[in-house]
Amino acid sequence: MKVDLLIQNVQVFNSYFKQFREGNVAVLDGRFLYIGERNAETFEASEIIDGQGRYMIPGLVDIHLHIESTMVTPETFSYGLIQNGVTTIVPEPHEMANVFGIEGVKEMIRASQDCVVDMKYAIPSSVPATSMETTGGSVEIADMDELLASGDIVCMGEIMNYVDIIRDENCKTNRILEHIRKTYPKLVVEGHVPKLLDLDLHRVIYAGVDSDHTHQTAEGMEARIAAGMFLEVQEKSMTEEVMDYLIREDVSEHFCFVTDDVMTDSLYKRGHLNHIVKKAIGMGMPPERAIYASTFTPARRMNMTDRGAIAPGKIADFVLVSDLRELVIEQVYKNGQKAFDAREQYRQVARTKQFPAHFYESIKLSPLTESDFQVTTDAPDNRYPCRVMLVQNGSTFTEDHRGIVEVREGKVCWEESPYGLIAVFERYGKNGNRGYGLISGDTIKRGAVATSYSHDNHNLLVVGHNPHDMMVAANEVIRNQGGFCVVEDGKVIANLLLPVGGILTEEPLEKTAKEVEKLRRAMESLGYEHYNPIMSISTHSLPVSPALKLTDLGLIDVNAGKVVPLLLM
Amino acid sequence: MKVDLLIQNVQVFNSYFKQFREGNVAVLDGRFLYIGERNAETFEASEIIDGQGRYMIPGLVDIHLHIESTMVTPETFSYGLIQNGVTTIVPEPHEMANVFGIEGVKEMIRASQDCVVDMKYAIPSSVPATSMETTGGSVEIADMDELLASGDIVCMGEIMNYVDIIRDENCKTNRILEHIRKTYPKLVVEGHVPKLLDLDLHRVIYAGVDSDHTHQTAEGMEARIAAGMFLEVQEKSMTEEVMDYLIREDVSEHFCFVTDDVMTDSLYKRGHLNHIVKKAIGMGMPPERAIYASTFTPARRMNMTDRGAIAPGKIADFVLVSDLRELVIEQVYKNGQKAFDAREQYRQVARTKQFPAHFYESIKLSPLTESDFQVTTDAPDNRYPCRVMLVQNGSTFTEDHRGIVEVREGKVCWEESPYGLIAVFERYGKNGNRGYGLISGDTIKRGAVATSYSHDNHNLLVVGHNPHDMMVAANEVIRNQGGFCVVEDGKVIANLLLPVGGILTEEPLEKTAKEVEKLRRAMESLGYEHYNPIMSISTHSLPVSPALKLTDLGLIDVNAGKVVPLLLM
Repeated sequence: MKVDLLIQNVQVFNSYFKQFREGNVAVLDGRFLYIGERNAETFEASEIIDGQGRYMIPGLVDIHLHIESTMVTPETFSYGLIQNGVTTIVPEPHEMANVFGIEGVKEMIRASQDCVVDMKYAIPSSVPATSMETTGGSVEIADMDELLASGDIVCMGEIMNYVDIIRDENCKTNRILEHIRKTYPKLVVEGHVPKLLDLDLHRVIYAGVDSDHTHQTAEGMEARIAAGMFLEVQEKSMTEEVMDYLIREDVSEHFCFVTDDVMTDSLYKRGHLNHIVKKAIGMGMPPERAIYASTFTPARRMNMTDRGAIAPGKIADFVLVSDLRELVIEQVYKNGQKAFDAREQYRQVARTKQFPAHFYESIKLSPLTESDFQVTTDAPDNRYPCRVMLVQNGSTFTEDHRGIVEVREGKVCWEESPYGLIAVFERYGKNGNRGYGLISGDTIKRGAVATSYSHDNHNLLVVGHNPHDMMVAANEVIRNQGGFCVVEDGKVIANLLLPVGGILTEEPLEKTAKEVEKLRRAMESLGYEHYNPIMSISTHSLPVSPALKLTDLGLIDVNAGKVVPLLLM
Repeated sequence: MKVDLLIQNVQVFNSYFKQFREGNVAVLDGRFLYIGERNAETFEASEIIDGQGRYMIPGLVDIHLHIESTMVTPETFSYGLIQNGVTTIVPEPHEMANVFGIEGVKEMIRASQDCVVDMKYAIPSSVPATSMETTGGSVEIADMDELLASGDIVCMGEIMNYVDIIRDENCKTNRILEHIRKTYPKLVVEGHVPKLLDLDLHRVIYAGVDSDHTHQTAEGMEARIAAGMFLEVQEKSMTEEVMDYLIREDVSEHFCFVTDDVMTDSLYKRGHLNHIVKKAIGMGMPPERAIYASTFTPARRMNMTDRGAIAPGKIADFVLVSDLRELVIEQVYKNGQKAFDAREQYRQVARTKQFPAHFYESIKLSPLTESDFQVTTDAPDNRYPCRVMLVQNGSTFTEDHRGIVEVREGKVCWEESPYGLIAVFERYGKNGNRGYGLISGDTIKRGAVATSYSHDNHNLLVVGHNPHDMMVAANEVIRNQGGFCVVEDGKVIANLLLPVGGILTEEPLEKTAKEVEKLRRAMESLGYEHYNPIMSISTHSLPVSPALKLTDLGLIDVNAGKVVPLLLM
């Protein structure tokens, strides 16, 4: 019989028995037709490939990630994924939703439609995450209904406010979950429930949240699986303890690997979900189980029954691998068509202006002056105890530290203190709010950094040690309608442009990866001590991440869930 | 916190680890809230049950069965199921669809709505099964669209015409499957693919059919699972070979137990899916895996993610069991409410006239005379070789046997032959067709049996050894608007009334079970040799079941797929 493609002489991964089996594979109309011993005597194939005994695995499936974390467009992201064997993703456009509301979500979906990688979207469920910040947009229940009616959605993205679910029956999150249970009872609802156990954990699951992708312990995984949760394991969760548990126990049906947030240079240099699979194998997980956890279980979790396995009827997304333990990718096929070949040149032709015109004009701020970095107060002249945001190497959490600062003539004399200044300027033209705080610890020790890429509200965040450098950095970001700018002695030493909503670039992956690396080094040259200074600084404004953060409404005591003053009088 | 029900001191089945764990269970609003060590100190419960250390398992879920096989209404069936711990079923009203088309399906769904057991329907996909019979109704693609829009449907019922799928690209079944792939890509499609292997098997799966509930071998199961099929194992498949395979191999995710067809007396005396679970345990399957295969995997197969496990958020359907190996059922709860208690009286109050008036007037035939059981022919007087349907003990297949019969004055002298007569009368008032054949083997040796319960077309089927008894039996069925009648020497010796569509009774389960037993014994007293003479005789008109069958169009050579003559000239 006629087929489009016949791949002969391969070790085919069988997802149902979690083992490789020698054989040939026939593809018809973009789907696998046959796997077995039959060959060209049975099949009249338009194309025959000699697999040379290579391993043939399903295209990788990543069901929890944010494209915006890589600061590129879906098109660039797809280019980066394909060469790493990832053929299907479930992105949650949480950041674009914070900037543009439902329009941001729709434009991300639209921008994904011509991509080689299949992108099935998650609805951002927590936009804004709190009421203690000003965002460009929000996602309400009516927006969710509209998105679900469009058919491009496979799940509700991570529900973050687990505390509200338990404590406040009438909170927005509980209203959303109740609406989903009634209206879309089969919709997958993703979760974010760090450290929860016992009754609190069961209450959140009862409310409808039945996955978790946060950092895990063996005890936490055991409790989650026993209660019917599905685990999404990201790289930072891959400790010895976690991996030992996943390898030792019979829990293959209950977890998958995900990437969540991958920096541009990391995607370019280390890869994507394939890097995690390789790491899992390196930590002792049998390759078959690591592959299962990055193909079959994630697809099933999202009810994507048309993929995740090399079996009759499934979409013909597959990867030919020459070295199983190192996961060396030779070719990648999407819908039965070759999409990447390691032997051939693979280069991105990046397009610009893929989004509506106003997506490039989202920083609604006039140029700032040095005086905008002076902190005024009604307090009489004196030395005051004050709050200081203490940045910690290796974490996105900060400490709520106590310091001393002098007030003279209505001004907080921060320049004379041992601390830097952190400022947030509302940038959506909504209210002109500004928040100020003092900062110390493992952050920069001189110069300034400004960015419009600041979770989740993406207002203009500036950290620095003198008003001039801060002004220069901030105005560069404003002038460019978004980006990351590092300034030392009045001079720009790194400048990443993010003109789409102030958070994405349309430049090609290679170029952006190099600029991100330069940015990272520039921040380190000013004294930043962190494995990822970009992630660190961009979460200083995230009011759901402990302990002391800053939004345009002021300093946030995250554990208390409220705005608090700088000076303690 | 307040809950509705707290069950303390039970061995709770955990579906995710496939093991029992001691604990307490809290139920709120019909769903499980909590499973663990917490007790009445945490929960203020409206009702507290002491589980006395009993086993608590999820309500059983049967995803492949035909209610009509039990010849009772959904209400009676639900009554029979609950005492056996079955709380959710997926019935396929294939027989009612053959009698009334889509209206039959809708009325079965309607009649199920107030039942204690949740009934989620499968759309009959093969009505009529062939073009070689006259049925009361058919189910076309437009009917399927209408049913799917109603929201009461969880899958497409068993696709039977696997031969057509492979051989005839444009057959009705392929058109249906193409429509489903395009319009409802996530719809579960059930299958019936006996003995298929290799390319034929893969082609049927490629077409969209990915389960099988027919009789299995180890080789067949291995091939099906490897190709991504889900296996539904019914009692007749539970051979030593099959059970050894299911116990030995790591295939728990890939199969479940189903009942398919259960006779009324069997449901009353032996039970339902619980009987199969008990049998599997008796054959060496660990109880945990047998329970998993009758709760979790069937629910997941049908995307019923809200049940099949005792876990937070799942519907609180559960069974308290005192002896695990014998599966002794003490109490059954549906939606957190007690539905059955072995210590209390449990009695059915059967309702009548649950269906529309014309459902009780479906046998559109005038009374027959003895001459209706004379077989005429144009053949000149002679002795002719002829086809004889040879009934086989232990099978629903017949043999296409060769015999000799005399023709005199245009009549086939079957009464003088060693054979009985089998006749089918079209009973929908459509065309007045009649088919005649000769019958022998393990069927009755004297008297007559008539029935309107004859798969799949449910025309009036009569088997007998003299015209008078056949006429009496047939007219009794016509007069009663459906049923099974056994006659000996002109006297009715068993008479089961099936007035709903000629295939169901509204009498209570106990009464019907006794009548079915009486019917079975009456047929045996006339010489029928079969473990299930009712099933045997009612499949004599099933033109998809080998080898020689009879419909209103005449004798059917099933393997050749065509109508064939009685006399071989």
